[in-house]
Amino acid sequence: MKLLTYEVDRRKDIGVMSKDEMWVYPLRAFGMEYTSMMEVVKGFSQSEKDLLEHVSGLEPYGITGAAMRSEVRLLAPIEAPEQDIICLGLNYMEHAEESARFKKEAFDGVRKEAVYFSKRVNRTVGPDGEISSHSDIVDSLDYEAELGVIIGKEAYRVPKEQVRDHIFGYTIINDVSARNVQNAHKQWYFGKSLDGFTPMGPCILTADSVEYPPKFPIRSLVNGEVRQESNTERMIFDIDHIVSELSMGMTLKAGTIISTGTPSGVGMGFTPPKFLKAGDVVECVIEGIGSIKNTVSE
Amino acid sequence: MKLLTYEVDRRKDIGVMSKDEMWVYPLRAFGMEYTSMMEVVKGFSQSEKDLLEHVSGLEPYGITGAAMRSEVRLLAPIEAPEQDIICLGLNYMEHAEESARFKKEAFDGVRKEAVYFSKRVNRTVGPDGEISSHSDIVDSLDYEAELGVIIGKEAYRVPKEQVRDHIFGYTIINDVSARNVQNAHKQWYFGKSLDGFTPMGPCILTADSVEYPPKFPIRSLVNGEVRQESNTERMIFDIDHIVSELSMGMTLKAGTIISTGTPSGVGMGFTPPKFLKAGDVVECVIEGIGSIKNTVSE
Repeated sequence: MKLLTYEVDRRKDIGVMSKDEMWVYPLRAFGMEYTSMMEVVKGFSQSEKDLLEHVSGLEPYGITGAAMRSEVRLLAPIEAPEQDIICLGLNYMEHAEESARFKKEAFDGVRKEAVYFSKRVNRTVGPDGEISSHSDIVDSLDYEAELGVIIGKEAYRVPKEQVRDHIFGYTIINDVSARNVQNAHKQWYFGKSLDGFTPMGPCILTADSVEYPPKFPIRSLVNGEVRQESNTERMIFDIDHIVSELSMGMTLKAGTIISTGTPSGVGMGFTPPKFLKAGDVVECVIEGIGSIKNTVSE
Repeated sequence: MKLLTYEVDRRKDIGVMSKDEMWVYPLRAFGMEYTSMMEVVKGFSQSEKDLLEHVSGLEPYGITGAAMRSEVRLLAPIEAPEQDIICLGLNYMEHAEESARFKKEAFDGVRKEAVYFSKRVNRTVGPDGEISSHSDIVDSLDYEAELGVIIGKEAYRVPKEQVRDHIFGYTIINDVSARNVQNAHKQWYFGKSLDGFTPMGPCILTADSVEYPPKFPIRSLVNGEVRQESNTERMIFDIDHIVSELSMGMTLKAGTIISTGTPSGVGMGFTPPKFLKAGDVVECVIEGIGSIKNTVSE
């Protein structure tokens, strides 16, 4: 099922999408009084899940607060992550190659160890929100469509084969990057953490709704032109590897968000590079989850 | 003045140290009902500051809950940071040199841009707490004594000359690092973010207690042997630079913690390296703030 944070009649709510995707039902209609998606991620019980799974198949009649999908505005499912987002770098082979080419570094075609960094996110950007261009300090704004994985159950020293039990669900993240800032400061943190650099959405697809590991077609488009196109099964380090490895040293609390890296086709991968400019529309699509479509600000 | 998080008679409290450092007075004795230091950092008013400054000069008689310093156990002043700690890499010249030497990289003696990375901290370690050795995945455990700067007032696009108005206070941070993990994964995040890698304390020295920018002698000792010895005025990128630069793109919320980099003398700087082993005692001292002394676990 798809869980949503949305606004209708200026009221913010957490809800579930009906299976036909025509309706949104607020969780409170079923006696679930969550005030944020983060509470849902941490507190959701199996019986609540089962109930929502059931009601998402129902017609809207008699469901208090049911709204038509077309009449609500979707927000980022998690608006204020509780910790920085953990990100993977260079986690699709062709992207590792294009990145080395852009930095004029040698690339031997081998990725021995996963690259982890983080992205501060004071506030995520909604699925139709604006990407801040920061044009005073950024001359090479880039997009990165990624599968976001949300941890639902604290993970500490989790073997690979048990990782799936810790996954709450999936979302789409655009890991917007300022290449000049990212490279000038050596470590990528600052160039990834500018305000307005984390569009997310349109929903959280709960983990039990898809096979594991998920094989999602993923792509991005800029002004309608396809730029990235791959499948999440082509990650070099998969979800089992990532969560298990990190959890060997770091406790991943419920609510942890991991952005699993981007395929080739980002702006810096082209010759000459195709960086984003004001007014550009970036769409990131993951089949099965949905799409987010964000315009670059002046 | 020095603000403390401490435990006495199994009760946790927030307090102020008396000027003679013999006593600890709980803030609640003066009608200030804060339940965590983070609330103090965010909510402290000038009149509360003035009152505490005044009472810290008083004798303990009649102050409800006053306890002798020797009878309380100090905890990390901020036990659960609300976001990852922002860290500076290579921010003292001799440390930049020793780091390049360890990685067998060329170093041209110039640091053009600050290096920013982050450190996830689920829970800080208290001033007498244990550093986790993670001996199953770490073979090169290292210490880094650093000045921690705590932002008290949200910073967005702050010019250098106004940075001081945003600083709440200072603390000591040991930026414990797993060199093998840090280097294997290219970006430093994972090797810096293991559980139990962030001892902090023993207090927050409020910014108004010292000249600005602060010129603190800083040193570290391992089993009593001096390893690092410098002064925070020798940072390459100073507090004004750091906060102003970051704030040009990232809103630094009240409660943000910035660890400003470490001087030379870390374990990897020696030939052969002097990494930490189980039972070692690492002391980080900043004159004017105090010291933290942590033992490495098995």
